[in-house]
Amino acid sequence: MTRDEIDTPALLVDLNEMESNLRQMAAFFADKQVKLRPHFKNHKSPILARKQLEAGAIGLTCATLREAEILADSGIRDILIANEIAGERELNQFVELSRRADVIVALDNETVAAEMAAVSRAQGIPLSVVVDLNVGLNRCGIQPGEPALNLAKKAVQLGLKFRGVMGYEGHLQAFPQSEERDKVVRQVCQSLTDSRRLIENAGIPVEIVSTGGTGTYMIGGQYPGITDIQAGSYLLMDTIYTNRGSTFSRSLTILATVISRPDQNRAVVDCGLKVLSGERGLSTVKDMEGVQLKALHAVHGLLETQNPDERLQPGRKIELWVHYSDATVNLHDRMYGVRNGDVEEIIRIEH
Amino acid sequence: MTRDEIDTPALLVDLNEMESNLRQMAAFFADKQVKLRPHFKNHKSPILARKQLEAGAIGLTCATLREAEILADSGIRDILIANEIAGERELNQFVELSRRADVIVALDNETVAAEMAAVSRAQGIPLSVVVDLNVGLNRCGIQPGEPALNLAKKAVQLGLKFRGVMGYEGHLQAFPQSEERDKVVRQVCQSLTDSRRLIENAGIPVEIVSTGGTGTYMIGGQYPGITDIQAGSYLLMDTIYTNRGSTFSRSLTILATVISRPDQNRAVVDCGLKVLSGERGLSTVKDMEGVQLKALHAVHGLLETQNPDERLQPGRKIELWVHYSDATVNLHDRMYGVRNGDVEEIIRIEH
Repeated sequence: MTRDEIDTPALLVDLNEMESNLRQMAAFFADKQVKLRPHFKNHKSPILARKQLEAGAIGLTCATLREAEILADSGIRDILIANEIAGERELNQFVELSRRADVIVALDNETVAAEMAAVSRAQGIPLSVVVDLNVGLNRCGIQPGEPALNLAKKAVQLGLKFRGVMGYEGHLQAFPQSEERDKVVRQVCQSLTDSRRLIENAGIPVEIVSTGGTGTYMIGGQYPGITDIQAGSYLLMDTIYTNRGSTFSRSLTILATVISRPDQNRAVVDCGLKVLSGERGLSTVKDMEGVQLKALHAVHGLLETQNPDERLQPGRKIELWVHYSDATVNLHDRMYGVRNGDVEEIIRIEH
Repeated sequence: MTRDEIDTPALLVDLNEMESNLRQMAAFFADKQVKLRPHFKNHKSPILARKQLEAGAIGLTCATLREAEILADSGIRDILIANEIAGERELNQFVELSRRADVIVALDNETVAAEMAAVSRAQGIPLSVVVDLNVGLNRCGIQPGEPALNLAKKAVQLGLKFRGVMGYEGHLQAFPQSEERDKVVRQVCQSLTDSRRLIENAGIPVEIVSTGGTGTYMIGGQYPGITDIQAGSYLLMDTIYTNRGSTFSRSLTILATVISRPDQNRAVVDCGLKVLSGERGLSTVKDMEGVQLKALHAVHGLLETQNPDERLQPGRKIELWVHYSDATVNLHDRMYGVRNGDVEEIIRIEH
């Protein structure tokens, strides 16, 4: 099957680029104390998760109970849910997951800790937590230092398995790489390792200090006291990250068909925001200088050209770079693994 | 099953509101010459398509070959693909569809018409088209008047079944209802019916003159010479349309669980842009005055309150109004049909 035999619109992954990213990240961590626990939420593909483990990852990070279930269903044992859960049904689902895998969940609240401990006791299943620190993203998380220590103590008192701390500096992923940005990333790492020491000094062992993303892994990955890095986007990559200066290569495109050519300087493709996220900006067209995506409607992409371009005839295939991989992969149930123009494998995305 | 027993995040449809919308639209068309051919792309649910047919719709409109396949697979015979198709594979798929349903596709290009006619002859299957007019949206479509007439003639010469014309005034759906907007909608209807007359005067029968959406159906639905209206969003509705003054009621919400309460004035829910589109604006929170959605991350919704609100404790369920139904329904494979707090049916969404 060649690229042009795929029904459009379709999500393609260039296997050469993806494998190059896999190797580059594995090489970075090969000689480090800090290890990679890549985020599953970006690709949601058990096949790619396996490739990451084979390349040296110590487990997978994920964002939801559902993602943890998908990982456990595919036989993956080491799972960090780097996000809070709450609610009776959810806590019971976490217990069920903990029966069949080493699943750790983020915790930032004493009431939830008490409810979790009650479910753990009632079901006779130990439950593992990391205390989630707010390292500046201002989303979830408890303040570093004393508040973190107190929650760690509480978790231990309640009978939960306290495994360590985490803190995601998502607000810093968005900044272009610079000396100033790197300084703040180091402050985040210091804050996490300070909390680690505080907790250890209270006699509570800390196994995990987890942080970092594709924009910041280099700093956390070499920081004494950090144990693992949650970077996920590095594998497939997107234009958001390359615009910020990432050294990984974009592997994802949307294959689309030109369906209309209303005039010489306009064309319409069968690729709208239902298959290509515009949530963080518009995509660019691959290998077609002078052709621009001007708008995404629900099922249409509107292209404009400065000069008439013969490649924009109805029926022709074009590719658009995925701008925001997380949200775009989420719109598909498969990606077509392409190598040198041929489809080598179809990679399932699980939801 | 009650609402609170649903795994979150989940898409809910309030059945009372949805049925009220269904009845309101059916009542409008009950005494009209113009008929409703509702757009499937909005809900992508064969179950809801059936309800629309039972309420008097003459067929379904859709946006893609895939949607037409879903409709044909569920036994629906009258299908208008209100969008262009192109490419050898796509034209062959259209032939296959035409073997088992009365499928009509939009056409705006002579070259595509010739290719379509060649496939039709080769397979011995008649293929039906409507000529798509650019009525100001500047997406697909040929100019009304002579260009439309020439393409209609060409289609007939080539041996395609010419069924009529269509023109979608999508750019006018976005304007709040006003006298000025309505005047432009009437100009669109006039342009379509002028093209109809021009084609009929050339001796070519015109069966279909299709236009309109949820924001404009009232005008097209009473315009002499228009035959059917493509409105789709009216059934489920969203905040985009109610903000513009629509008289239909919103039925769609996302059920979410509070997972973090970092301080008295902030809370985080397990509902991000992977389940709730932010492509056209942010959602509002249902039945919780003073609580605002400030941002959508991939899997998090960030809420803020002026005053501490006890309903924002971790584990509590809240609902957010769907702002943009087309893009949000697209993120789900089911909606939970809720009536007075109980789940009455699970409605499959097909992709």
